[in-house]
Amino acid sequence: MTANIQNYSHKRYNSLTGEWVLVSPHRAKRPWQGQEEEQAQDERPAHDPKCYLCSGNVRANGEVNPDYKDVFVFANDFSALQDGFESFSIDNGLIKAESEQGLCKVICFSPDHSKSLAQMTSKDIQKVVHAWQREFVSLGRLNHINYVQIFENKGSIMGCSNPHPHGQIWSQSSLPNEVDKKDKQQLAYFKKHQTTLLKDYIAQELKLNERIIFENRSFVVLTPFWAIWPFEAMIVPKTPQKDISIIPNEDTVLFAEAISVLTKVYDKLFNTSFPYSSGIHQAPTNGQTNEHWHWHMSFYPPLLRSATVKKFMVGYELFASPQRDITPESAAKTLRNLSNSI
Amino acid sequence: MTANIQNYSHKRYNSLTGEWVLVSPHRAKRPWQGQEEEQAQDERPAHDPKCYLCSGNVRANGEVNPDYKDVFVFANDFSALQDGFESFSIDNGLIKAESEQGLCKVICFSPDHSKSLAQMTSKDIQKVVHAWQREFVSLGRLNHINYVQIFENKGSIMGCSNPHPHGQIWSQSSLPNEVDKKDKQQLAYFKKHQTTLLKDYIAQELKLNERIIFENRSFVVLTPFWAIWPFEAMIVPKTPQKDISIIPNEDTVLFAEAISVLTKVYDKLFNTSFPYSSGIHQAPTNGQTNEHWHWHMSFYPPLLRSATVKKFMVGYELFASPQRDITPESAAKTLRNLSNSI
Ligand SMILES: O=P(O)(O)O[C@H]1O[C@H](CO)[C@@H](O)[C@H](O)[C@H]1O
Ligand SMILES: O=P(O)(O)O[C@H]1O[C@H](CO)[C@@H](O)[C@H](O)[C@H]1O
Repeated sequence: MTANIQNYSHKRYNSLTGEWVLVSPHRAKRPWQGQEEEQAQDERPAHDPKCYLCSGNVRANGEVNPDYKDVFVFANDFSALQDGFESFSIDNGLIKAESEQGLCKVICFSPDHSKSLAQMTSKDIQKVVHAWQREFVSLGRLNHINYVQIFENKGSIMGCSNPHPHGQIWSQSSLPNEVDKKDKQQLAYFKKHQTTLLKDYIAQELKLNERIIFENRSFVVLTPFWAIWPFEAMIVPKTPQKDISIIPNEDTVLFAEAISVLTKVYDKLFNTSFPYSSGIHQAPTNGQTNEHWHWHMSFYPPLLRSATVKKFMVGYELFASPQRDITPESAAKTLRNLSNSI
Repeated sequence: MTANIQNYSHKRYNSLTGEWVLVSPHRAKRPWQGQEEEQAQDERPAHDPKCYLCSGNVRANGEVNPDYKDVFVFANDFSALQDGFESFSIDNGLIKAESEQGLCKVICFSPDHSKSLAQMTSKDIQKVVHAWQREFVSLGRLNHINYVQIFENKGSIMGCSNPHPHGQIWSQSSLPNEVDKKDKQQLAYFKKHQTTLLKDYIAQELKLNERIIFENRSFVVLTPFWAIWPFEAMIVPKTPQKDISIIPNEDTVLFAEAISVLTKVYDKLFNTSFPYSSGIHQAPTNGQTNEHWHWHMSFYPPLLRSATVKKFMVGYELFASPQRDITPESAAKTLRNLSNSI
């Protein structure tokens, strides 16, 4: 089976979203004459008096950050979602809109301005996991919040405007497109097989052992068969859990370890502070049982072949479908080899 | 109606794809402290001896470009799609793939290395339109080709590795994700209303006159209600046409004029050679009547507020849904005003 997909153009089906990615393995050696990114500046002080995320500093809205010691969460000063206004909707022929209420928060991973997750210990990352759990539960409890999106944009190339280690949490009333797709695909699978799609998927992957990057007792880190980004990876709990609030407490440090290993491997790959967007997809907080959901955390890194050459998701990708050159199998192999020397 | 959607967070429905975009009008004034792009170098010679697209030069595969006078089309030396191999498919539990056959071509818009569409005359752009028509027809006629994607990546920020004015044509056996979505939405609309979705939509837009940028006898240029990119725009023929091959010949110069006006307006906006990805969505070449299809050309430009500050489609956008700050109405107004002085 695998000979063909390592040699000829093909499309792979993403069972989680129901969409396809075009793979062109033969094109991996195309020369690059286009734009190169600036290499991220990596020397930073532990505290930067001009950083609006460092402890004790003043933020855009005049508030002063507390002298926090580990994780610090606050409402985004420029929230993309608002609440407290009256709902409205427009349904005028082909012009259709609905108000969307929500809350946006920022989460500082550490008071140390110079660090990233890759330089933090698993114990420190575990505190981030605990904060994600607390936020997920308290936001999810609100009546007008039915979905909580936890994510991180790391690196200026990923639109991150401040190098202080931090992520975001946007919570809202309705299910966004990508979550809605995964909701439908997982529900259909659960109805048919009485088990979660990802439970069966990782069982299959562990057996094939072609795309596994790392595993510990409770988590698998792998390059999904349908990965879009050159070095995309996914962290999946081995037991079905609909959301992060029900990770057994003794497993939170294992989740932290998976994040730690993956981010360290990434930094090693091109010997740079590796940029990415990461995010957790999990069950809506809509009061349903949602037993078809199996939460997972994905990493979408843009770099393709060096610290300065990225994959562009442009013309064909925007108008037709995502496209990749190097195969997920070869990316996984590279990352797995690096993980052995962490 | 419009007061609310100019002030509060809401989502807009894209009737063509069935997906939503999150709009945060209140956030348009957020300060930007993040990455700024380099401003594109604009001084170029009419012929560059090192350019692999200029006439008479040698390409990567050793071929010599002819001494072409207007438009020049050739097979991409690094095609992402191949043909002539035996089809295969993999259907192993959650691991599913299918071979995808196809042909990729490059189309030089002009022999003049220093130009872009914005600096070409409508008469010259009409020659590009004619070439698109010819390629669409001849590729579409091949048995193994059922869809033809015409697109352009303009500017290094859009992954374009050569500033010589050119676009691409990727043709393939199956319908890519984005086209499949539009196919389904337009078909459902046609079945219900016996007319094309875009015919009704532009009638509504022309009446509202809030998002129109430019029109001539046969084409409308507008910012769609559901636009994702800050200055996104769409060119739509006023009469339903399933693909570009059936544009009446006297209208091809009007299509060229619409492209000319839009690209000139773009260059004026931030006084720079405006980057974008553009693409034409049209009916599959699958031998069906496809009367539900109404072709259109879209422009997705990344710039947000200056020649160096772009909109990042990252964390929330990748994991949840596209998000925008300035409203399509305000973008359309800016572009329309600029079009008055072209
Ligand atoms: O084919 P090109 O111009 O070398 O490449 C460019 O366009 C392609 C199609 O959108 C993308 O896949 C590439 O990432 C981009 O760099
Ligand atoms: O909220 P930030 O970090 O200022 O902004 C960043 O992340 C957001 C959410 O992915 C994006 O909408 C912005 O384009 C990006 O610059």
